[in-house]
Amino acid sequence: MHKIAVIGATGIVGTTFLKVLEEDKIKADYYLFASHRSAGKVIQFMGKDYTIIELTADNVAKVKPDFALLAAGGSTSIEFAPILANLGCTVIDNSSAFRRDPTVPLVVPECNPEEAKKTKSKIISNPNCSTIGSVVALKPLDDLYKIKRIVYSTYQAVSGAGQAGVDDYLHGLDAYVKGTQPLPQKLQHPIFNNLIPHIDVFLDNGNTKEEDKMIFETRKILKRPDLAVSATTVRVPIENCHSISINVEFEKKPCIATIKKVLAKAPGIVLLDNPAKNLYPMPMHANGKNEVFVGRIRLDESRENCINLFTASDNIRKGAATNAVQILKLLI
Amino acid sequence: MHKIAVIGATGIVGTTFLKVLEEDKIKADYYLFASHRSAGKVIQFMGKDYTIIELTADNVAKVKPDFALLAAGGSTSIEFAPILANLGCTVIDNSSAFRRDPTVPLVVPECNPEEAKKTKSKIISNPNCSTIGSVVALKPLDDLYKIKRIVYSTYQAVSGAGQAGVDDYLHGLDAYVKGTQPLPQKLQHPIFNNLIPHIDVFLDNGNTKEEDKMIFETRKILKRPDLAVSATTVRVPIENCHSISINVEFEKKPCIATIKKVLAKAPGIVLLDNPAKNLYPMPMHANGKNEVFVGRIRLDESRENCINLFTASDNIRKGAATNAVQILKLLI
Repeated sequence: MHKIAVIGATGIVGTTFLKVLEEDKIKADYYLFASHRSAGKVIQFMGKDYTIIELTADNVAKVKPDFALLAAGGSTSIEFAPILANLGCTVIDNSSAFRRDPTVPLVVPECNPEEAKKTKSKIISNPNCSTIGSVVALKPLDDLYKIKRIVYSTYQAVSGAGQAGVDDYLHGLDAYVKGTQPLPQKLQHPIFNNLIPHIDVFLDNGNTKEEDKMIFETRKILKRPDLAVSATTVRVPIENCHSISINVEFEKKPCIATIKKVLAKAPGIVLLDNPAKNLYPMPMHANGKNEVFVGRIRLDESRENCINLFTASDNIRKGAATNAVQILKLLI
Repeated sequence: MHKIAVIGATGIVGTTFLKVLEEDKIKADYYLFASHRSAGKVIQFMGKDYTIIELTADNVAKVKPDFALLAAGGSTSIEFAPILANLGCTVIDNSSAFRRDPTVPLVVPECNPEEAKKTKSKIISNPNCSTIGSVVALKPLDDLYKIKRIVYSTYQAVSGAGQAGVDDYLHGLDAYVKGTQPLPQKLQHPIFNNLIPHIDVFLDNGNTKEEDKMIFETRKILKRPDLAVSATTVRVPIENCHSISINVEFEKKPCIATIKKVLAKAPGIVLLDNPAKNLYPMPMHANGKNEVFVGRIRLDESRENCINLFTASDNIRKGAATNAVQILKLLI
């Protein structure tokens, strides 16, 4: 039986790793790691009690896992992914730390599953949550008509900023109800009853790093290194599930009926596109689901060969935990 | 002294009409109209008590106003705007009823003030709230570099759906706190902790009427009847203030420094664009203000001559009441 380490097991993504592993009934010898703060805690998982192991190089070396699911933040990934890889462990890393490394595949199983087995560094990166929620829908369209340019505008939930982001939202809600002023701890500004067009840090070109990630990662996953991509990423007052408004220009003339037919059959997608019945993707649909919901598909008459579409997906599941477990399943 | 009728004076836009008229100290003989339901109610306005008059053709004819600010919904506008115009009254109508009428100017005073005086029908339309929150920023840029194409994605507050939209949000919040299921009365789906990529009705081309309004009205206000415009309009769980992610392609090469310099001086705009200090437009800035807040201005490297920008504006003030009162001031 494989030894699988779940690292960052008590965080918002880590606990969802455990949920998805249970749902998928993936049998293995599990070792749950977290920081000093959570070490010793007992967690119920797969019907058994697990004691959280403190994440140290020694403890990891004692376990010598075959696979590790890593969701403990970028600096922990930078420290522990190479340690694990040197032990012969294949690391599926949820942080952005290694995504740009050419020796590290960036995998969305619906788009580029073949890359998972090509890792030379024993590290595989899980993409950014908004990127995953986009490329699952875009890959079949790129195959059909070859994408020329993408313009993204995102509507990203607070859970994307971890439990601290959710807490900012909930404290803001509480303050709103009490008529007091909310004070954000994690986000740059109050998020409840507000939105923040700023995720991650700003870069010199005026984009945020989150926007830059969407541009770079879309290209890497679709294997279109020169693809024209623009992104504006926005945090909205929603607990969970990212939505994305996507404008796509193709090389070839798109047909809406064909697109709907293809997406309805594509893996990992729920096509929800029936305006007559008020059906289109929303966070309330995607919450707790593993699929990317796609709809509002229509021609954009402002330019030849353009369409608009709208997606919603659970950023903690498909945007993180589900995608990582899917990668794991490709390997075991 | 001019006789000014405020019609729909008890609604969410109507009460803001009164606030803005007070703030601007516009002296006139005022007559406040509303539906049968509100008639007889007494309202404090400009330091005096006003009794709400029931909106009927007879009551309007008795007053014979010189100007009317109309914010009582599309069907009321269709009925009463011509009645008022026939009495010689100039009507500033907040509904979408007449915006497409070629005899009716569609006016944003920062963009096309000269149109206000050209009305042949005695009716002037106030544009859609999201359109106003965009064109105030786009007009100076169109003058600079000539816009070739616009891609809008909106983040629209519930107040855009009137008090009933706000009530859906507040009931949803209440249900969330109590752990019950919210039941929307006005909107198509629960809006609290969710978003809805659907505003107004769906058209045959797959766009919503709200999206169609943004396309049509941007062209009419900028006097660019063939301008390429695409829009995706989304209701978000925010009480007040619409935000818009705008991707713009120009005919000429844009310079970000020049754009910032021009927008900083342009009328009706607050330039809020200092990433180093986490300054960019958000609903919390725009709420209660009359200006359009503009920021996140940066080159979009995905195509030549493209930029991204982000705006936030109070949809009830600049998106409705403030704009209408500004039109009134052009005329009196």
